[in-house]
Amino acid sequence: MEKPAAFRLLPILVCSAVVLHVPWESEKRLNFIAVGQPVRDIRPTRMVQPTSASPRGRAPGLAHGFAVPMALAGAAAAFAARSQRARAQGRTACASGGDVGVVLLSAGVGKRMGASIPKQYIKLMGLEIALHSFDTFLDSSAAEIVVVCADEWQYVFKDHLAKRSADCEVKFTNGGNERQDSVRNGLAELTTPIAAIHDAARPLLTKEEFEKVVEDAREHDAALLAVRTKATIKQATGPKDSFVAATPKRKLLWEAHTPQVIRADLLRKGFEHAEKEGLEVTDDVSLVELLGEKVKLTEGEYTNIKVTTPEDIAVAETILKQRGFVAPSD
Amino acid sequence: MEKPAAFRLLPILVCSAVVLHVPWESEKRLNFIAVGQPVRDIRPTRMVQPTSASPRGRAPGLAHGFAVPMALAGAAAAFAARSQRARAQGRTACASGGDVGVVLLSAGVGKRMGASIPKQYIKLMGLEIALHSFDTFLDSSAAEIVVVCADEWQYVFKDHLAKRSADCEVKFTNGGNERQDSVRNGLAELTTPIAAIHDAARPLLTKEEFEKVVEDAREHDAALLAVRTKATIKQATGPKDSFVAATPKRKLLWEAHTPQVIRADLLRKGFEHAEKEGLEVTDDVSLVELLGEKVKLTEGEYTNIKVTTPEDIAVAETILKQRGFVAPSD
Repeated sequence: MEKPAAFRLLPILVCSAVVLHVPWESEKRLNFIAVGQPVRDIRPTRMVQPTSASPRGRAPGLAHGFAVPMALAGAAAAFAARSQRARAQGRTACASGGDVGVVLLSAGVGKRMGASIPKQYIKLMGLEIALHSFDTFLDSSAAEIVVVCADEWQYVFKDHLAKRSADCEVKFTNGGNERQDSVRNGLAELTTPIAAIHDAARPLLTKEEFEKVVEDAREHDAALLAVRTKATIKQATGPKDSFVAATPKRKLLWEAHTPQVIRADLLRKGFEHAEKEGLEVTDDVSLVELLGEKVKLTEGEYTNIKVTTPEDIAVAETILKQRGFVAPSD
Repeated sequence: MEKPAAFRLLPILVCSAVVLHVPWESEKRLNFIAVGQPVRDIRPTRMVQPTSASPRGRAPGLAHGFAVPMALAGAAAAFAARSQRARAQGRTACASGGDVGVVLLSAGVGKRMGASIPKQYIKLMGLEIALHSFDTFLDSSAAEIVVVCADEWQYVFKDHLAKRSADCEVKFTNGGNERQDSVRNGLAELTTPIAAIHDAARPLLTKEEFEKVVEDAREHDAALLAVRTKATIKQATGPKDSFVAATPKRKLLWEAHTPQVIRADLLRKGFEHAEKEGLEVTDDVSLVELLGEKVKLTEGEYTNIKVTTPEDIAVAETILKQRGFVAPSD
């Protein structure tokens, strides 16, 4: 069904509105729209999505530093083209104007699963665990996905892309020693003003949850999906001790999930600060908390589990079946 | 296979050792061995295990206040008889000398499962969820089990007892409005010096875990099964707020499970204190913590899950299958 001509002009109007409105960190946003990020995203590990027969959604001007008016025209045209393609495919185009990029952490070697391959490449209902959330992001408002994984596993994502259409740009980079090193590597490839960090071992993330936490991050600069803790949590007297020091009030406690969505420059600042101070964290928004910034808890679903053991696979299958998920045919 | 005569004397030696050794709260222990608890355990809701054809394992003197030497002789004889029966059944007799009683909380009406009956009566591998841990306790060193449940569900436990032999005494009482009211009701029926409180919705507790936490409670007066938290936990600014106030160090955090095992008099004191001060808690050892007493964290298994959703049943089944559990035949 073709929409009226006025509707086709909408993306251009949105782009103009973005520029005329002065948002937080407006320079960064203009910088993104006008000149993109420096050339560091053209690296051996980078792969522009190879499977789409149509031209890339982003105008060439974005990558090569044209002046603002030129870039604006290019961006508007790209946006219009992207919207039209998405409409033709019956999907929603980047509703956000492409301000969000995803760092998909898929470099873990998790051995608790007892399998010979990293857990995120085990098939869940006929589809690799990592591809479940990859699909969710490809169908979302994300403009860019940086997959952090070992070179030998890139093919999983590339082969999958070859089988489906997608509007967003997909890049690859390698992981580091620790989770935070992987996040840093992914962040270095990201050109969007907002970064959504997600563990590939959480395959059950829904598009609705993603858009909700992104919306909160737009409003509050940093947000994470989380659920209220059902269990009573005990604080021990020491890391190696096993006596109770305190029982924090359960009503105040949340269990952190991913995505954790943060203004990219704030996250970069958080990394610098943590490195300078020698601080270790177990999640991404902690880097921002350590700067003294507010972080929003976005209430997510209990189903957004991390798959780490064979039992978790059984749970994930049950949930996917309830959702009516159908395994893809090869 | 019959053990040598010396082995038959072992229970008597153990009993003597218990009396000669002066343990913590030795008066309580002697009180238990000699005169038992007051008659409050003879109430309408009380049911002496009705299914065992053999005489009760406890000597009559225990319940009616005979003097110490008489009771000691009776206790030793009972212990020997119980050991012999247990050996004949290929099971271990009350290794602890019967100092532990279980309060099995089975009065919940949990509706998250979406079933028409309380979740603990849903069958898991052919056996009601509540009966899984009930069996574990029947096979353990527990001397007494107080099942806290609605009258109409007592038959589940009674019918099960009719199908198997058991050494320990089983009583029933009703639940209260809140979990803590149910614990208090159960505790009122208990005659042992140590109380182990367990949620019937945790069917996967192993006998090894139970004995481990009981041993810790014997040493430290209060202990609970717990596992180190895998998730990052966030503390919110308020119960209704959804901003992060703090991220407690994960290395210090444990997730509380049950059984929570506490010296019964200490738990009673904890209840009095909490009532006087109007304090609310979400678990049992918290009552003891609020008295300023030390509580031991006994490292348990991640498999000791609380079954609250249909997905949890899927997980529990997977774990039981891995353990080689065979559904009972009717």
